[in-house]
Amino acid sequence: MKVVESIEDLRMERKGLAYPVGFVPTMGYLHEGHLSLVHRARVECGSVIVSIYVNPTQFGPWEDLAKYPRDLQRDLRLLEAEGVDLIWTPSDETMYPDGYQTWVEVEKITKVLEGAIREGHFRGVATVVSKLFNATLPEKAYFGQKDAQQAVVIRRMTRDLNFPIEIVVCPTVREPDGLAMSSRNIYLNPEERKAAVILSQGLLKAVEAFKNGEDEAAQLRKAVIETIASESKVNVQYISCADPDTLQEQEGKVNRALISLAAMVGKTRLIDNVILE
Amino acid sequence: MKVVESIEDLRMERKGLAYPVGFVPTMGYLHEGHLSLVHRARVECGSVIVSIYVNPTQFGPWEDLAKYPRDLQRDLRLLEAEGVDLIWTPSDETMYPDGYQTWVEVEKITKVLEGAIREGHFRGVATVVSKLFNATLPEKAYFGQKDAQQAVVIRRMTRDLNFPIEIVVCPTVREPDGLAMSSRNIYLNPEERKAAVILSQGLLKAVEAFKNGEDEAAQLRKAVIETIASESKVNVQYISCADPDTLQEQEGKVNRALISLAAMVGKTRLIDNVILE
Repeated sequence: MKVVESIEDLRMERKGLAYPVGFVPTMGYLHEGHLSLVHRARVECGSVIVSIYVNPTQFGPWEDLAKYPRDLQRDLRLLEAEGVDLIWTPSDETMYPDGYQTWVEVEKITKVLEGAIREGHFRGVATVVSKLFNATLPEKAYFGQKDAQQAVVIRRMTRDLNFPIEIVVCPTVREPDGLAMSSRNIYLNPEERKAAVILSQGLLKAVEAFKNGEDEAAQLRKAVIETIASESKVNVQYISCADPDTLQEQEGKVNRALISLAAMVGKTRLIDNVILE
Repeated sequence: MKVVESIEDLRMERKGLAYPVGFVPTMGYLHEGHLSLVHRARVECGSVIVSIYVNPTQFGPWEDLAKYPRDLQRDLRLLEAEGVDLIWTPSDETMYPDGYQTWVEVEKITKVLEGAIREGHFRGVATVVSKLFNATLPEKAYFGQKDAQQAVVIRRMTRDLNFPIEIVVCPTVREPDGLAMSSRNIYLNPEERKAAVILSQGLLKAVEAFKNGEDEAAQLRKAVIETIASESKVNVQYISCADPDTLQEQEGKVNRALISLAAMVGKTRLIDNVILE
């Protein structure tokens, strides 16, 4: 397993990799969710590149960039064990050198849900993923369903800008009690960690209602809202029942739906979602 | 020479092309300026792709999209004679299908000169060139110095987004009397055509002054302004003496400068420039 920092070294090592190349972009502090992406890439591809880069341009000014958890040595051990071929750990100077001034903007689908609350977040995501794609030139790239809107934005951007890359979205990996894996779970104190399980329990209620024939968007949202309301430590920011492709909020009967939510658990912001279909 | 329209056919044909691949993006209605780019690509590369696409997103609502000159059959004959391997003529539906919503924005350097007058122009240019790059995957791409600001924007975007492409900027090709070649020259009536020569004559005055030791930005601009003022059929929009990389307007003494201008000749808008160094 090679670890490189500069784009020049990356391009050099990229030349020797077996086809097809699978790519897993990460911000490090890896958990089972990331490793499931790496594992899938390892199974499907001739070689695997992982990037580790905490991208400053997708954090808002009041967000947790400075305290975002990092542990490169642990990350490298985990990736070595997964049989990764090449790790890229670019510096901020490599990614955003003096005079940097180019941005990739996806419009409509970035204005709702996370995008409505985290202004500029998806501009940062779309830009850094474009840069990572052009630097690593993969045949396939792997993203987690946990960040549902991000997956929709990346798919749209990839199609719109003609990137010759297949986007693979992998299922959310959960803790035994149902909490979606996230690098940010480490911020939770024991009480908050216990309370946070209500998020996946709320989503499960929507899954069950849909299975039992409930297809009214308002009722599906209500099933989640009422469940989560029972946990006073959790403050919901939004609970959405949207079209899984356009992310437009749905009313009336639905055939397919992305049920997604964001909530504060103490000072920690968590997101989760399920797709009903 | 193959001519393809869909991205799928383009990608298929691209696979068989000899390395390195040179790419010349055009809006068609080819003149000697375009052909000089193709010729340079032919000399430097193993194979040459040319795209012909009048990109609607770089035209403003009051600009000449509808009447922009087109002659595909003539273009194809000229490119065949130059030994081009592959022509891509995408449709609007291929480039901007329903639901399209992704844009590439270069910031500071697109706000001045042409960008200050043609709002949204460089957003359209940066976006379509990103799409063309990802579809054709060239090793080198060729642009004309005639569109000086476009060349600076494309270079910046290519570096910022990590496109693995070398940008080659080729000298402006001129008519025997000095007028810069442009597809838009066809709009000029005989009187306007005669008057338009004053633009390159004005720029030549700045070149001569600089050669003779004049290095004050204001004096260099003045040399151009005074020359062009002698031709009443020409209405200047701007005459600039800017840094060739940052495009910041310069004052005082200059070491290097991009002298550029835009002017209306009748109803036709023309641009031209020279680099002093």
